Amino acid sequence: MNSSLCERVQSRLDRLTKPLGSLGRLEEIVMQFALARETPRPRIERKSMYVFCADHGIAAEGVSAYPQEVTAQMVRNFAAGGAAINVLCRQFGIATTVIDMGVACDYEPHLAVLDRRIARGTANFLRSPAMTAPQAAQSLDTGRALAREAATTCDLAGVGEMGIGNTTSATAILAAFTGRDPEEITGLGTGIGAAQRVRKAETVRRALALRRPNPGAPLSVLQAVGGFEIGAMAGFLLGAAESRLPVAVDGFIASSAALLAARISPGVLPYLFFSHRSAERGHGVLLEALGAKPILDLDLRLGEGTGAALAIGVIEAALRLYNEMATFESAGVTPLPDRPSPDPRQDP
Amino acid sequence: MNSSLCERVQSRLDRLTKPLGSLGRLEEIVMQFALARETPRPRIERKSMYVFCADHGIAAEGVSAYPQEVTAQMVRNFAAGGAAINVLCRQFGIATTVIDMGVACDYEPHLAVLDRRIARGTANFLRSPAMTAPQAAQSLDTGRALAREAATTCDLAGVGEMGIGNTTSATAILAAFTGRDPEEITGLGTGIGAAQRVRKAETVRRALALRRPNPGAPLSVLQAVGGFEIGAMAGFLLGAAESRLPVAVDGFIASSAALLAARISPGVLPYLFFSHRSAERGHGVLLEALGAKPILDLDLRLGEGTGAALAIGVIEAALRLYNEMATFESAGVTPLPDRPSPDPRQDP
Repeated sequence: MNSSLCERVQSRLDRLTKPLGSLGRLEEIVMQFALARETPRPRIERKSMYVFCADHGIAAEGVSAYPQEVTAQMVRNFAAGGAAINVLCRQFGIATTVIDMGVACDYEPHLAVLDRRIARGTANFLRSPAMTAPQAAQSLDTGRALAREAATTCDLAGVGEMGIGNTTSATAILAAFTGRDPEEITGLGTGIGAAQRVRKAETVRRALALRRPNPGAPLSVLQAVGGFEIGAMAGFLLGAAESRLPVAVDGFIASSAALLAARISPGVLPYLFFSHRSAERGHGVLLEALGAKPILDLDLRLGEGTGAALAIGVIEAALRLYNEMATFESAGVTPLPDRPSPDPRQDP
Repeated sequence: MNSSLCERVQSRLDRLTKPLGSLGRLEEIVMQFALARETPRPRIERKSMYVFCADHGIAAEGVSAYPQEVTAQMVRNFAAGGAAINVLCRQFGIATTVIDMGVACDYEPHLAVLDRRIARGTANFLRSPAMTAPQAAQSLDTGRALAREAATTCDLAGVGEMGIGNTTSATAILAAFTGRDPEEITGLGTGIGAAQRVRKAETVRRALALRRPNPGAPLSVLQAVGGFEIGAMAGFLLGAAESRLPVAVDGFIASSAALLAARISPGVLPYLFFSHRSAERGHGVLLEALGAKPILDLDLRLGEGTGAALAIGVIEAALRLYNEMATFESAGVTPLPDRPSPDPRQDP
């Protein structure tokens, strides 16, 4: 924590034409963002969303409401601009990059989709580890490289995902790191029924008993029960932190990647904005494990980065307020008696 | 409730390329908006924010952290584009109208400020009723006329306010309608201390004992302890509902106007979107009295319409998703087996 930077940011926040502290969470967002960027006057000019896509062998266990081919169909939908994330990124002026980390089914190659396919989906982690150690490393490295590139082209990124079966993988990661009972944290994903949820939780429990990932060795967790898109998101967050690029983390699955990244390097957390509290059952436990206070609570459970796009709108609002509002002295408004003296030389 | 319209909207929501119900609150917002507009395909092309400003005689009792001249100074700040609400309205593409309903101090007339001044502030309601019966009617009528005009120029409006002393008036209105103890619902407003808060609550209690407004006669409450901007906001909400114009209601003070409007005509409520849960102490009780579920919870307590502007961004996102997302049939994505059959003729 840079206390001199902190003071300069707080001093400006307190001289804006508003009651002290009255922008609430938006002021906290400004402070976190400024500390992440290491500058007293950070701006958000360019925003980018990264949507990581991959398939999951565990889908063969009937854990999802949708068949596996929907992943490839949705990649096509992203490329055509018809998915929810496309609509939101258009509204909020966010550039969108779709990355195929390992989609199982074929689809027409498209300029709007980066091909970083590691394999045609992970293995069914009830039968074998989800991926090999080199594949786990490759997924992290792919995300890390994308983040380094992102840091040269935007001021704020978002991460989201698509992958039939990936709430099962995210749940297994959460259980592996926290020791929580899968029954307690397994949710309805894309919309399965109560009986299917019980089977899904049992699948996670059996897989963890068979794979025995070591929570002290985060890569072993990714290898055992992870997904290529989850590894890539974790790598992206690590690379973003290394480049001082703040990232809006979407919902349950993206948060599981954040937990993985934080177990690899806790220093990643100050760069992450947790976008929203998802309706997915395990998200509360996951946010708690991360010490995270999400920005929005809209009962979303769609993924793709939709919650992150909405949160980016709020983060941008916070920064614009900080940069564009008049100060008491510039607007000729009477400040409170105990306000910091209006010394323009101290204006960051 | 128009059940056929309801079904058509739900049918389209369920055919968009996303798991059923996965947009959570955004789907509820779409439904409420469509029912308010009485059309299966509502759009938001133009948005307008109305910021109602006025002074309060009760400020003489030392209930605020700021002196009364700050109201006029802030009106100037609104006109110059330097206030928080200006920044947010620029970001979200919202036209802004500032209405002087009764500012006490002089300021240079400005084209960006509508002069609808009823008096130079209300009377100190500890000494006499805040306004006369004709003034109360005039404040409602002014707001109502503005809403009718707004309905011809925008698809979604927001209401916010500025007025030193107006949390005291809003608290008195809330206490008058609900019978709650002022001590329980009196907050810190712009940032007073704990001792000043106790005096503020006591001021509200004494005023209500002296004025004895009749909660069964809403205009008598406005006349006794209201504000010109609060009456105008209530009138705006009534006029908006009459014109089927949805309105995003800002925080504590705007919500007190919504309560006043709802006591005059409960039919106003389906047209109102409650923007956020304010950090102001009494807002929870107020939202409960309105049966309202706010969209955001960001600890804001600034007013001006800032929470409403942020909520308008979310409401617009909901409507864009509804209108712009591909459907399962158009995108060639496999729907769930129990989805409504893809009959394009039924598409609203």
